[in-house]
Amino acid sequence: MITLNVNASKFYSIFVAKTDAEFPVKPFQGKKVCIVSDSNVAPLYLNNYAKKLTESQVFSYVIPAGESSKSAENFIKIHSYLAENEFTRGDVLIALGGGVVGDLTGFVASTYMRGIAYYQIPTSLLAMIDSSVGGKTAIDLPEGKNLVGSFYQPSGVYVDLSTLNTLPKTEMENGMGELVKYAFLDKEITVEDLQGGITDVLISKCLSVKIAIVEADERESGKRMLLNLGHTVGHAIEALSGYTVPHGTCVAKGLSYAIALSKAVYGLSDEKVAEMQNLLTMSGIDLSIPYHKKEILSLIRRDKKAKHDGVDFVLIKDIGSCEIKRMDFSVLENIL
Amino acid sequence: MITLNVNASKFYSIFVAKTDAEFPVKPFQGKKVCIVSDSNVAPLYLNNYAKKLTESQVFSYVIPAGESSKSAENFIKIHSYLAENEFTRGDVLIALGGGVVGDLTGFVASTYMRGIAYYQIPTSLLAMIDSSVGGKTAIDLPEGKNLVGSFYQPSGVYVDLSTLNTLPKTEMENGMGELVKYAFLDKEITVEDLQGGITDVLISKCLSVKIAIVEADERESGKRMLLNLGHTVGHAIEALSGYTVPHGTCVAKGLSYAIALSKAVYGLSDEKVAEMQNLLTMSGIDLSIPYHKKEILSLIRRDKKAKHDGVDFVLIKDIGSCEIKRMDFSVLENIL
Repeated sequence: MITLNVNASKFYSIFVAKTDAEFPVKPFQGKKVCIVSDSNVAPLYLNNYAKKLTESQVFSYVIPAGESSKSAENFIKIHSYLAENEFTRGDVLIALGGGVVGDLTGFVASTYMRGIAYYQIPTSLLAMIDSSVGGKTAIDLPEGKNLVGSFYQPSGVYVDLSTLNTLPKTEMENGMGELVKYAFLDKEITVEDLQGGITDVLISKCLSVKIAIVEADERESGKRMLLNLGHTVGHAIEALSGYTVPHGTCVAKGLSYAIALSKAVYGLSDEKVAEMQNLLTMSGIDLSIPYHKKEILSLIRRDKKAKHDGVDFVLIKDIGSCEIKRMDFSVLENIL
Repeated sequence: MITLNVNASKFYSIFVAKTDAEFPVKPFQGKKVCIVSDSNVAPLYLNNYAKKLTESQVFSYVIPAGESSKSAENFIKIHSYLAENEFTRGDVLIALGGGVVGDLTGFVASTYMRGIAYYQIPTSLLAMIDSSVGGKTAIDLPEGKNLVGSFYQPSGVYVDLSTLNTLPKTEMENGMGELVKYAFLDKEITVEDLQGGITDVLISKCLSVKIAIVEADERESGKRMLLNLGHTVGHAIEALSGYTVPHGTCVAKGLSYAIALSKAVYGLSDEKVAEMQNLLTMSGIDLSIPYHKKEILSLIRRDKKAKHDGVDFVLIKDIGSCEIKRMDFSVLENIL
């Protein structure tokens, strides 16, 4: 088991383990625990974890699998469920599942009685390397994804790699989009790493990149925006698809835009661009984009990072060296 | 105009002014501003303030007056309204109204795109001395009041005393319950102060008590609970009345319980108890409680501050000297 520490507004540990065997139950002793999970993950893993919590009063709340569960309706329903079962400020939530479960559970935890503790057990590749760490919580509205949320760190994260055995292929692809993003942000993650499959070492390398950035800028006023590499266009594609194309897949497509934009802005050589594109193809993701640039731009204008005349874009100067650059919408219109 | 500063997780100023004349518009220049108000306050004051914001793009959102507007439904509706009007992270909300408007607007601000700035213009006595300052935001659920919320400081507070001229008598009483509470917490607020009517000096004295406590313990892990003097029983009475009895009125009734409990716990002299009761009557509030103690206790068990076997109660050792004491439910059952 690899242990990583996050030193943000809350100090907490991330355990990267090969199985559920080393799950630490001490933080839950003597407390009410509500395990929030979804209809895919719960039948596979909920009982395993619930059974370990022998000295807790265990409750569970299962939402239908899928992005549409990250809703205001479920947000309120879980709150009501906790209230009905008389959860107090000293009790705890566990998010057992992917990003939808983690984001929703984290947002509930951040607002139930103005904040109770929660722990993450991410069961998707995407959640393991990205959404379970860093404290971004949210729900979606019809008007936009992640529109309502908070910054609220978990009290601990337990990555159980064995859960990837049951992860559908499309969900692995979903994670690969974010995974390859880290390789653009930090040279420590090499093409060889990516060729070696998903290991605890690779997961830990990705998490280390994220942790360093979150520690430097928890509330995304500067450096943390680097993590949005590929996301500005990625979010737009996701929205245009009606959220039918997975997030990580959209990020990979957004990365291909970011390479094109970086080429135009920095005048990158064809060789460098080819090297970047090669790295990106390691994700195994189809990079085609079936939308017109006008549609994409109109969505970007509504992005959380957009200001009135432009948006902060993450560009790739070189592999392992990215920077945030303010791009006017008028300039984007010409280049994209 | 009296200026007070709050040095919490956010640094901000409170201006206590006699009219709207000195309202500072600079923080709003060049931004979109959404003034959230209610159906009582908006017709009286919304235009006055909107007209001052000549260098902002002003929007407004008016909710029906009353506690039932502090709902999940309105929370989501305002978010959608902001999204439709393309508010970004750099834009701003203003809460113009009483505690319902302030709590709801603050909670929306704390969660829209994970947090945008908001300012408070409290127009009720209760909001002026209590809810507009300190960053407690919330909405109600059918299962309980303020069950969902956050700690999120405003970026500034402007108290405009002239708005009290239109405040209904019952709302003045509502504020008096909280006002007299401050007199129990700090000897600086004397019987003479209370006899002199509502002045900028009295408001500032109350705010100073609150500010000192919030600065010492913003997230209510210790000292801030002192502000809950009268609230444990007060909240229960409020819930039992179906929220038809105003909050401050319930706090005054809760204070009378707190005096009785303090007498039993500390063995206070009859003279001391009479002095306390005299101070409490300065609120002018009917202190009768038409509920059985069993009903009240059952509600207290669900209080945010309740743990499994008891609750932290604020007791009055002497006027100006209160303390938090853990009370087992079994003990409360006997004394109350």
